[in-house]
Amino acid sequence: MKVKFPIIIVNYKTYSEATGKRAIKLSKTADEVSKETGVAIGVVPQLADIASVCDVVSIPVFSQHVDPILPGSSTGHVLLESVKEAGAIGTLINHAEKQLKLCAIENIISRTREAEMVSVVCTCNAAVSGAAASLKPDIISLEPPELIGTGIPVSQSKPDAVTEMVALVKHVNPSAVTLCGAGITKGEDVAAALKLGTVGVLVASGIVKAKDPRKVLMDFSEAISAAM
Amino acid sequence: MKVKFPIIIVNYKTYSEATGKRAIKLSKTADEVSKETGVAIGVVPQLADIASVCDVVSIPVFSQHVDPILPGSSTGHVLLESVKEAGAIGTLINHAEKQLKLCAIENIISRTREAEMVSVVCTCNAAVSGAAASLKPDIISLEPPELIGTGIPVSQSKPDAVTEMVALVKHVNPSAVTLCGAGITKGEDVAAALKLGTVGVLVASGIVKAKDPRKVLMDFSEAISAAM
Amino acid sequence: MKVKFPIIIVNYKTYSEATGKRAIKLSKTADEVSKETGVAIGVVPQLADIASVCDVVSIPVFSQHVDPILPGSSTGHVLLESVKEAGAIGTLINHAEKQLKLCAIENIISRTREAEMVSVVCTCNAAVSGAAASLKPDIISLEPPELIGTGIPVSQSKPDAVTEMVALVKHVNPSAVTLCGAGITKGEDVAAALKLGTVGVLVASGIVKAKDPRKVLMDFSEAISAAM
Amino acid sequence: MKVKFPIIIVNYKTYSEATGKRAIKLSKTADEVSKETGVAIGVVPQLADIASVCDVVSIPVFSQHVDPILPGSSTGHVLLESVKEAGAIGTLINHAEKQLKLCAIENIISRTREAEMVSVVCTCNAAVSGAAASLKPDIISLEPPELIGTGIPVSQSKPDAVTEMVALVKHVNPSAVTLCGAGITKGEDVAAALKLGTVGVLVASGIVKAKDPRKVLMDFSEAISAAM
Repeated sequence: MKVKFPIIIVNYKTYSEATGKRAIKLSKTADEVSKETGVAIGVVPQLADIASVCDVVSIPVFSQHVDPILPGSSTGHVLLESVKEAGAIGTLINHAEKQLKLCAIENIISRTREAEMVSVVCTCNAAVSGAAASLKPDIISLEPPELIGTGIPVSQSKPDAVTEMVALVKHVNPSAVTLCGAGITKGEDVAAALKLGTVGVLVASGIVKAKDPRKVLMDFSEAISAAM
Repeated sequence: MKVKFPIIIVNYKTYSEATGKRAIKLSKTADEVSKETGVAIGVVPQLADIASVCDVVSIPVFSQHVDPILPGSSTGHVLLESVKEAGAIGTLINHAEKQLKLCAIENIISRTREAEMVSVVCTCNAAVSGAAASLKPDIISLEPPELIGTGIPVSQSKPDAVTEMVALVKHVNPSAVTLCGAGITKGEDVAAALKLGTVGVLVASGIVKAKDPRKVLMDFSEAISAAM
Repeated sequence: MKVKFPIIIVNYKTYSEATGKRAIKLSKTADEVSKETGVAIGVVPQLADIASVCDVVSIPVFSQHVDPILPGSSTGHVLLESVKEAGAIGTLINHAEKQLKLCAIENIISRTREAEMVSVVCTCNAAVSGAAASLKPDIISLEPPELIGTGIPVSQSKPDAVTEMVALVKHVNPSAVTLCGAGITKGEDVAAALKLGTVGVLVASGIVKAKDPRKVLMDFSEAISAAM
Repeated sequence: MKVKFPIIIVNYKTYSEATGKRAIKLSKTADEVSKETGVAIGVVPQLADIASVCDVVSIPVFSQHVDPILPGSSTGHVLLESVKEAGAIGTLINHAEKQLKLCAIENIISRTREAEMVSVVCTCNAAVSGAAASLKPDIISLEPPELIGTGIPVSQSKPDAVTEMVALVKHVNPSAVTLCGAGITKGEDVAAALKLGTVGVLVASGIVKAKDPRKVLMDFSEAISAAM
């Protein structure tokens, strides 16, 4: 596997604060914090920024999305081979903001496996996490849609949902690991996530829109170091 | 306007032959042919390749698609600002393989105008070209879906459809210009397109999958030079 | 044309208050008010209710949507022929809650014309209304999405948007007529819509969720009678 | 459960041969054959035909699709409550021609369960069948997309895919049952399906486009009777 755990994965979404040059700057910060603390940090820039980000960091870089296509006539779609060649080592699949059809999810997981890339399937609840886990992705990330962007941490406000998801995924596919996300803004939210049995967090605005992203990344990393 | 006419715009789709390093190589070839012949050539690489291509060429680079979004929470979507910062000077909109809702097309045309980028709306027939033209894009490109990838040139097999489109666009919006595409593989197809009143062609497999793309680009460019 | 103007078109959406038996009851009310007042009223029930509603009323019944398909292998899609045979005399196209791709809109308008059905294209702003009008539908209905369901009447809060739409449609396609919708709850909103040059309103919650739909329909109809 | 097994479920798609009056005629034929032979037959007419079909038959009627929505503002969408009130006792979910996002599938299965309706999730391969089964639908129906409409029966040409699906579903959710479909045109195809462990077939053109649908339905029913 091309990533180690626990891990903090930072989704840049389409935030201005993490577009173009600012994506590169934030990625360098993440790279530095990861090196300083020894804690794994992955970043998920926009498609057009993957190559530039990969040029300047050595931490894992993920794509936000790939389409269920083979090379060919698919103008405007995202080809796995293209994000891989740009330097991504894995991809989010089925993020709440870019949901996919069931057969597409299965197809993309298979294709990431063949390409030796890391698949991170995002799910909206425990039942869906179980279904996703049965398709044998590497990572399942639970993000209750009602908490995304709220600052109400899933790991502290919905611990039972996370615990249920972790148990279900373990039952269905013991070789998959789990993350949780939504509302994660503090080290204690990350610590809570680990305590519930996940191997880390998928975070977006909590880092990207922070006044001082480095400080928050340090806070998250220290929470992970303390828990190990 | 950031492009000059007549122009050959080469859509790389998601072809293996134009992904990653091969996108860069093909773009350099297009750049060289354009400089040698003085004929405008634009290229449309995949999203993940835009930045790398822009680093090595000075011809116009377009995005294959942008989404009708503002900066924010749109994981996996394509933000205009992101492709612009990567170096694209314009974008395809509503390609037959990535069709968009009507309100989205209007929104994206407005946003490209504000961003001083070039909008190329793709359309499936003359009536739709007229509707698109009324939304004031810079360029309308007619591509009858039944001819895409066939090698049967629209400019020679459906001249009436092209003529009708050119007339309708001129009537609706005299400041827009027109292209045609689908099945274009030879210089004579390009010459025929110009004769029908377009300012060039949108071409994909005819160049990307050619044994010798440089030779075909030279053939196209010479047809344009001869017609000027 | 199978409808006369001015007209009040009532969209039942997927409201409980207008599903199944309650769709039939509301349709009978609309039918009665139309007969009593002589003012044209059309209703737009859900797909599964079209046949039952058509069995009991003689006012025009519209479909909420049809798909851009021909008879064949399109499980779960809405075939024009099927809603026509169920009794619908026309269809909404591109409602804000069921937006369509540009080529699909053109296709459906053509198919409604061939089937001698009435096409009502919904649009989000004046520019899009102009583009839609160029495709030669029978009716264009402007519904600014930000006002839908708010009770803030488009005809009184955004008169300029309506006037601009009416003028643009008249310029592009003098044989089309216009409606406006969003936030219409009172007779005076309907009167304002007519004054701006439309031939009526497309209304949903203002009727369907009214305590006494008959009373509101009477109020709307009287406003129309007074204006004629 | 509102259906008994084995069962033949006939999907009318959007075929002309099964639209409007012809849907009613075919449904009466299915009703008669079911009564004559004692074999369960279900029919899946288009949305606009559900109510009329339910008026004239007593066999189970299914919807081709429902949307993952609650009552409210969803013009043009298909509300579960609306097809239920029209008389449908269940619904197809995720047919190959109307595929759904993973979270939508989970949502619709939950809603059919609450509404005491029968859920039939269609899947493209064994792995996806397992994922679907984990969401606890009543019935999983495997239809390899490459065989749909070909007349090459899945039960005879891909027995291993069916066996694998049956085993996986049994493992994941022992209370679910399985169907298979695609290319089913003869009684022997139905017999083969039962032998592989399914409880019947989902069939479309094999019945709808048959010269004599009654004869083929009798042939299918006799194959089932012989196997019981």
